[in-house]
Amino acid sequence: MRFTILLFSLFFVLNTTAQTDADVLKTIYKTSLTNGQSYQWLDHLSNQIGGRLSGSLNAEKAVAYTKEELESLGLDKVWLQPVMVPKWVRGAPEFAFIETAPGVTKTVNICALGGSIATPFGGLKAQVVEVKSFEELETLGKENIEGKIVFFNRPMQVDLINTFEAYGGCSNQRYAGAYEAVKFGAVGVLVRSLNLRQDNFPHTGSMTYGDLPLSERIPSAAISTNHANELSSMLALNKDLRFYFSQTCQQLKDVQSYNVIGEITGSQFPKEYIVVGGHLDSWDLGDGSHDDGAGVVQSIEVLRLLKESGIKPKRSIRVVLFMNEENGLRGAKKYAEVAKLNGENHIFSLESDSGGFTPRGFSFDCSDANLNQVLKWQELFKPYLIHYFEKGYSGADVGPLKSDTNVLAGLRPDSQRYFDYHHAANDTFDAVNKRELELGAATMASLVYLFDKYGLAK
Amino acid sequence: MRFTILLFSLFFVLNTTAQTDADVLKTIYKTSLTNGQSYQWLDHLSNQIGGRLSGSLNAEKAVAYTKEELESLGLDKVWLQPVMVPKWVRGAPEFAFIETAPGVTKTVNICALGGSIATPFGGLKAQVVEVKSFEELETLGKENIEGKIVFFNRPMQVDLINTFEAYGGCSNQRYAGAYEAVKFGAVGVLVRSLNLRQDNFPHTGSMTYGDLPLSERIPSAAISTNHANELSSMLALNKDLRFYFSQTCQQLKDVQSYNVIGEITGSQFPKEYIVVGGHLDSWDLGDGSHDDGAGVVQSIEVLRLLKESGIKPKRSIRVVLFMNEENGLRGAKKYAEVAKLNGENHIFSLESDSGGFTPRGFSFDCSDANLNQVLKWQELFKPYLIHYFEKGYSGADVGPLKSDTNVLAGLRPDSQRYFDYHHAANDTFDAVNKRELELGAATMASLVYLFDKYGLAK
Repeated sequence: MRFTILLFSLFFVLNTTAQTDADVLKTIYKTSLTNGQSYQWLDHLSNQIGGRLSGSLNAEKAVAYTKEELESLGLDKVWLQPVMVPKWVRGAPEFAFIETAPGVTKTVNICALGGSIATPFGGLKAQVVEVKSFEELETLGKENIEGKIVFFNRPMQVDLINTFEAYGGCSNQRYAGAYEAVKFGAVGVLVRSLNLRQDNFPHTGSMTYGDLPLSERIPSAAISTNHANELSSMLALNKDLRFYFSQTCQQLKDVQSYNVIGEITGSQFPKEYIVVGGHLDSWDLGDGSHDDGAGVVQSIEVLRLLKESGIKPKRSIRVVLFMNEENGLRGAKKYAEVAKLNGENHIFSLESDSGGFTPRGFSFDCSDANLNQVLKWQELFKPYLIHYFEKGYSGADVGPLKSDTNVLAGLRPDSQRYFDYHHAANDTFDAVNKRELELGAATMASLVYLFDKYGLAK
Repeated sequence: MRFTILLFSLFFVLNTTAQTDADVLKTIYKTSLTNGQSYQWLDHLSNQIGGRLSGSLNAEKAVAYTKEELESLGLDKVWLQPVMVPKWVRGAPEFAFIETAPGVTKTVNICALGGSIATPFGGLKAQVVEVKSFEELETLGKENIEGKIVFFNRPMQVDLINTFEAYGGCSNQRYAGAYEAVKFGAVGVLVRSLNLRQDNFPHTGSMTYGDLPLSERIPSAAISTNHANELSSMLALNKDLRFYFSQTCQQLKDVQSYNVIGEITGSQFPKEYIVVGGHLDSWDLGDGSHDDGAGVVQSIEVLRLLKESGIKPKRSIRVVLFMNEENGLRGAKKYAEVAKLNGENHIFSLESDSGGFTPRGFSFDCSDANLNQVLKWQELFKPYLIHYFEKGYSGADVGPLKSDTNVLAGLRPDSQRYFDYHHAANDTFDAVNKRELELGAATMASLVYLFDKYGLAK
């Protein structure tokens, strides 16, 4: 008899709890969709400020603006965390053409890769050797590469459903192409834009020279997919054609910048921290609406939604707007360094840095026990068509917070259109849909609510 | 011992079958993404032909074009199925303004609803009464409505995750608004566009006068959401303002048109039919890329993908491009009528008419046994992030094929952006993403493949 009562009580408790969580999620989603602020914030960040490359005036404007907005939310603390960041400037718009015979030229769209040096004054003109991989450089050897521009033209694999996987399969061309090509005497590098679409936008992104001294560095640029195809076709007809490009970018001295942080201090476990964030810097060609204006405003919105929904967190919940994800990750490293110094116990760190598209779920870098706890919450998300809860990559900015106990996670929006815009001039406000952005914010807030309520898996 | 062998054999058979199906799906998706035709067909349909209102020259061009494309696929049969369709023409561009005082006007964006009569020559100017429901008409009564334009301004509910549900909650204003308002002496009807976004596009769509004689009909138009908000605000300040609108649309006599049909005849059960389709007609303001150019090209692509993937269907698989879904459903009714006359046994009928967005799954109008069979296939779709398999609405065009044995289904793409474009001038080719379209086609082809292979649930 007592056992029956116990069972009944247990059922009642569990049932009440489940019902309550479902209600809370309903309130969170409703608030985001009917009374959301994320889209307005993104409008300001994108249209009033614009591209926010680390060290730029716009990046500093974004720091000031988001700090002010966080302050207006009535959080318990808002502060700037100083961090020195690299300052790379693009200079004058790049210019490039294919020359098939003296005076016979075809202009193509390129952009310097972030971190690249400029071409010599007046530009660089050389023959082109097209390759699809670093291995091909080895095969061709110095005799076929020296004095030429290496054109890395391995396209993203279109039949991969997860477009980030396709990106991962090609991004070494951009990041390390110059470093590899210079070993064989190349004078410049041209990289096919990391874009699944055939269009005219060049896509920038970070690259490295490794430990190469300044004198041995060669200029690197991305070329649009349409023009990459065209160059490849023209090379098949005429391997002696020449490619000209001019770019005046330069790496300046590091400058002072900031992570922007806001906190709701936990009522029961203030020393357990939950972080939600995105990165405040962006590339300079567009206005960085998807990458990562969306993640920034969604992360701020998470704290606002919790407050608006009347949730008093047990744990301390921080929004962290990381500076310099794109070309240095200095903000993320600084935040993790300070957290370690202060002995802060981070239990859950969630990043949104995959665009403001319809959310599908999350990927987790955590223990099986914690993933299993998340899977128990899965049913709560079903009404919102959130179905993806898998182990996988979390995010660049939360990465340095990895520990045995911290659950790292990344929001996983629909990825099909992401690389249409990524690091290109068309990553602008009009490419973000209000509802999709708001659904992402609500989905993040819901998971933060659950981690705050239940903590780590026992 | 024999039991063990049996179990082992059963495991082996099941495992082999599952592996094979997974391979087939992989081939289908890969073919669609690497070598798809759907996007090129849509380009032609949208950019070379354009909006395809029933009875228009463009609709006939679309019939000829799609027939030719089907013929080029080497199907077993391709034919046109004659059907008489209504012919409604928009006439000159509509014009409208709000007049707050004599000569003080503000132009607003409207469009005639499909099937509406014209305004009197020179336009119609009258006071406006704003309502949110038909019940409110009753409350206001003839004394407050007679001689006025009724402005139906109930917005779509933004916190519904399924935007079609939000559409369903408002569409009676558009469809039956005039019929209801005329009972109280209204002289015209203005309907808030069925759009979740706040923008300047008016969204057309079908409406009815029921059994009203021509002399009692009143003109009906849709107003953009931004201008609906503006009109509502201005009415709050000045209930005596006047609204002017002019439209010259008219309903002409029915004309001859066609459903376009192609068939791969089944090798084992040629008398069991599987239909996959979309509607070839569209509204006239945009080029009908999402509604329903996407469904048309995806449906054609299903048959091409099956052929390209080396699948020889056991059952007869038909692509049906239905004419006149938007304002009459004549094509769908005709197809079902002829199928019934011929005693054709349709076992599975799948429609794509919810836009060319990332596919999420399907909704089914079928028996529990058949849904359970589908759920057994669910795991096969997981690598493609297809997760939604629920009972629900199938589609307008397959609706007339409903029977005790036919499984009706609708492709369910992500719905968040659909009503941004639905029936408006911005439903154009550039709003469709190639990969999202291709994923939809592959998802449809995969389900058709499974229904062809396994037939109905036993």
